[in-house]
Amino acid sequence: LARALLLGRRGSAAAAKASAVKINEKASREKILTLESMNPQVKAVEYAVRGPIVLKAGEIEKELRKGIKKPFTEVIKANIGDAHAMGQRPITFLRQVVALCTYPNLLDSPSFPEDAKKRARRILQGCGGNSLGSYSASQGINCIREDVASYIERRDGGVPADPDNIYLTTGASDGIATILKILVSGGGKSRTGVMIPIPQYPLYSAAISELDAIQVNYYLDEENCWALDVNELRRSLNEAKAYCNPKVLCIINPGNPTGQVQNRKCIEDVIHFAWEEKLFLLADEVYQDNVYSEGCQFHSFKKILYEMGPEYYNNVELASFHSTSKGYMGECGYRGGYMEVINLHPEIKGQLVKLLSVRLCPPVSGQAAMDIVVNPPIPGEESYSQFIKEKESVLNNLAKKAKLTEDMFNKVPGIHCNPLQGAMYAFPRIFIPSKAIEEAKAHKMAPDMFYCMKLLEETGICVVPGSGFGQREGSYHFRMTILPPVEKLKILLEKVKDFHIKFLEKYA
Amino acid sequence: LARALLLGRRGSAAAAKASAVKINEKASREKILTLESMNPQVKAVEYAVRGPIVLKAGEIEKELRKGIKKPFTEVIKANIGDAHAMGQRPITFLRQVVALCTYPNLLDSPSFPEDAKKRARRILQGCGGNSLGSYSASQGINCIREDVASYIERRDGGVPADPDNIYLTTGASDGIATILKILVSGGGKSRTGVMIPIPQYPLYSAAISELDAIQVNYYLDEENCWALDVNELRRSLNEAKAYCNPKVLCIINPGNPTGQVQNRKCIEDVIHFAWEEKLFLLADEVYQDNVYSEGCQFHSFKKILYEMGPEYYNNVELASFHSTSKGYMGECGYRGGYMEVINLHPEIKGQLVKLLSVRLCPPVSGQAAMDIVVNPPIPGEESYSQFIKEKESVLNNLAKKAKLTEDMFNKVPGIHCNPLQGAMYAFPRIFIPSKAIEEAKAHKMAPDMFYCMKLLEETGICVVPGSGFGQREGSYHFRMTILPPVEKLKILLEKVKDFHIKFLEKYA
Repeated sequence: LARALLLGRRGSAAAAKASAVKINEKASREKILTLESMNPQVKAVEYAVRGPIVLKAGEIEKELRKGIKKPFTEVIKANIGDAHAMGQRPITFLRQVVALCTYPNLLDSPSFPEDAKKRARRILQGCGGNSLGSYSASQGINCIREDVASYIERRDGGVPADPDNIYLTTGASDGIATILKILVSGGGKSRTGVMIPIPQYPLYSAAISELDAIQVNYYLDEENCWALDVNELRRSLNEAKAYCNPKVLCIINPGNPTGQVQNRKCIEDVIHFAWEEKLFLLADEVYQDNVYSEGCQFHSFKKILYEMGPEYYNNVELASFHSTSKGYMGECGYRGGYMEVINLHPEIKGQLVKLLSVRLCPPVSGQAAMDIVVNPPIPGEESYSQFIKEKESVLNNLAKKAKLTEDMFNKVPGIHCNPLQGAMYAFPRIFIPSKAIEEAKAHKMAPDMFYCMKLLEETGICVVPGSGFGQREGSYHFRMTILPPVEKLKILLEKVKDFHIKFLEKYA
Repeated sequence: LARALLLGRRGSAAAAKASAVKINEKASREKILTLESMNPQVKAVEYAVRGPIVLKAGEIEKELRKGIKKPFTEVIKANIGDAHAMGQRPITFLRQVVALCTYPNLLDSPSFPEDAKKRARRILQGCGGNSLGSYSASQGINCIREDVASYIERRDGGVPADPDNIYLTTGASDGIATILKILVSGGGKSRTGVMIPIPQYPLYSAAISELDAIQVNYYLDEENCWALDVNELRRSLNEAKAYCNPKVLCIINPGNPTGQVQNRKCIEDVIHFAWEEKLFLLADEVYQDNVYSEGCQFHSFKKILYEMGPEYYNNVELASFHSTSKGYMGECGYRGGYMEVINLHPEIKGQLVKLLSVRLCPPVSGQAAMDIVVNPPIPGEESYSQFIKEKESVLNNLAKKAKLTEDMFNKVPGIHCNPLQGAMYAFPRIFIPSKAIEEAKAHKMAPDMFYCMKLLEETGICVVPGSGFGQREGSYHFRMTILPPVEKLKILLEKVKDFHIKFLEKYA
């Protein structure tokens, strides 16, 4: 057809031939890798925490730098749990140890404390050639895995932990994605189903998309402080059995984005359910140090599992995850983390090490940072008092900001915010008027994406729409970190309040 | 059947019932995650560099520590390109900058040079909150990507490089696996085929297994110093078209495990072939600083692509990879690296950033290390002379060891070793007598695995069998690093020689 058209237009066979060649050439120069030809599972991945709203925030920052006038002077990135980016100072001791490991000449410097030097020497002895630049074992440096095991035992009141069950990881995300990768199998109705909370942290849905596994949603109870109800787990599981083989149950405790802290009873119920229904448990416990509400306490799944007796602790397969990125240290950039596995089949442990070995090892300086998180200064050591002061200052501040955020949001008409029991986010429910919903539809946007885009454009505040985490149909939320310094956070919350009131008026 | 047997054996209905319950209980407590139920693609992954031979080496090390007598006193791990583990010292300047970034109090210390401080300040300015502990952009820190682009321009004699095309990665492995992940699609005969050299670095075969893509082998020409011949590429491609959709061509230059350095003509031929056959090019150039043989020189695919003219440089889709792990710096543990993409579709760049953002960012201290690799001291700067001395000392030593290894291997009857033009490995061909092949078969081992196991058990030297990299049917090899210090390497080569001669005698 194209040739015929060209022939008609140009009226000469020679020209037609030349054009045909040109067309062929052009055809041969189409890209190999396009949206149409790419891996459809990767295409299906969504990751809202760094999604369109964050790209927009980047554009606005560029415009501000160019001097373009806006109703604000800076973009505040409350989209991601990145404490240092919000001005939190690193824990001195942790950085001293990592610096000593990086540049061992400093071991002779009188300006570094002995307890930091002692730890640095121990870590370096665990490294090939005493260098952070050597590959470690794929499972991580031995002595650091021993320190992790000791930490878990202390944390869990003496429940034993075996260094052989500890795997150091590239942040918690890497561990979670790796375990999911091993777990997924089967085709059609026997494809592996992975149960995740809604709202969830979108690493889960992204990993499930990449692996072409089946996402099985269970809903947290917003009316009940985002509690997990086993009846809802059962409903979700039973429905899923019709279309897949659900064999993994993911728990995030303390919750992200929802901030709830699970009580002992809830965890027991979940473990019993996993035992009964033969589900592999994934416990994402990266916010274990971030618990703020009176009467709330962090219980690890591992500890409760042991307390439930041998029928449980000899059988339930559990992987739990921790990280250097959150807590009081906030060392996201180091990509440090660990996972502990319980009741993993010995052959699977071999498979896991094999899979990890393809990527050689987690970053060794991140492993060193993880070591200080699990092996901090103890009473009597030189650095103890400064360490405790720094740690408590961060955690007390976070607790204050959690309460402040809840209180301020709940004073705004059309916003409801559950208590921030833990973690570092508010996930308030927002009322969006139907006129705004219509306008969002006209822009082909989720209503809360529309809301968050407007918030960003009018105030410079970058938060993530609830639709990026999942929420009950017809309800709308956003996730905002509570990491900015108190005074800044207050201003930010005032701005959100003013924006929201104006938004309600505009679309009334 | 089990119940009937039990009934027969125990002779009582009550006992049979009790046993049946026990059986059921046991059945209900089978593992969820087993070799049978796991992801079959992960199960299919093989990674010889850290495979069975390395596990065995670990066991032997444990036995030595326990005081068990062996014909040797230490295990020498010549299986992996880990320079620092073999005693190579880190480049002082690189570590100074990373230490300054880690613990910025040191910026006030008179014991650090100004040029290191200047770089550290620049890197920290690129970090959120001036901290290595912040997440960076998923693509990597802006100013480091700028430095990478400048480095590439200098390296390639002025061919332009755009920081927007640079992605910092978690080592080169991460970049390679990520690009492959985006590329793989289709089912049945239209499943993506990935062409890789044989012998190859097993990251490629492992990533292909994980992604359930189709591995398409092209053979390097051992008789011709492991050169790449385009006729062999064409043979391989044409055969593959019958069972898959080959759309990716992977090149490793300098070669791993084979050490050849491709000349300009070869690279031009490969680029022309990729252009003609519409193949996406992956150029693994992590050994770009490791070129030893007279008359050999590293040419980047990017540079040759530009020199071939606009028809090529406007069209051929290329991703090339570099790393902090090899070269003269050997900083494997930092997991630093970058990739440069050329002619990637803008929509695919968006998809790439999205996919990378799920893992948040590459380790920031690894990014800092990468910065120093691409932005080292220059003439006139305080640290220049020490830097150059350290760099040249490492590279001159490697060149010496490359020649020594080739020469010593070629003096052993039944071993033939091509020149080690580049990289950091010897991949000698070894003659294995048929009696040894039979014994290997009896042990269900590949003949070269059998050989390497014997070598390990008798000498403590750990090398990787050629079967882990791929080789022509009936030929046998092993890969050995040339990283041990010269004197140690000589002893090691003597030991291999003695072992080989005894092995030939034993199985004559």
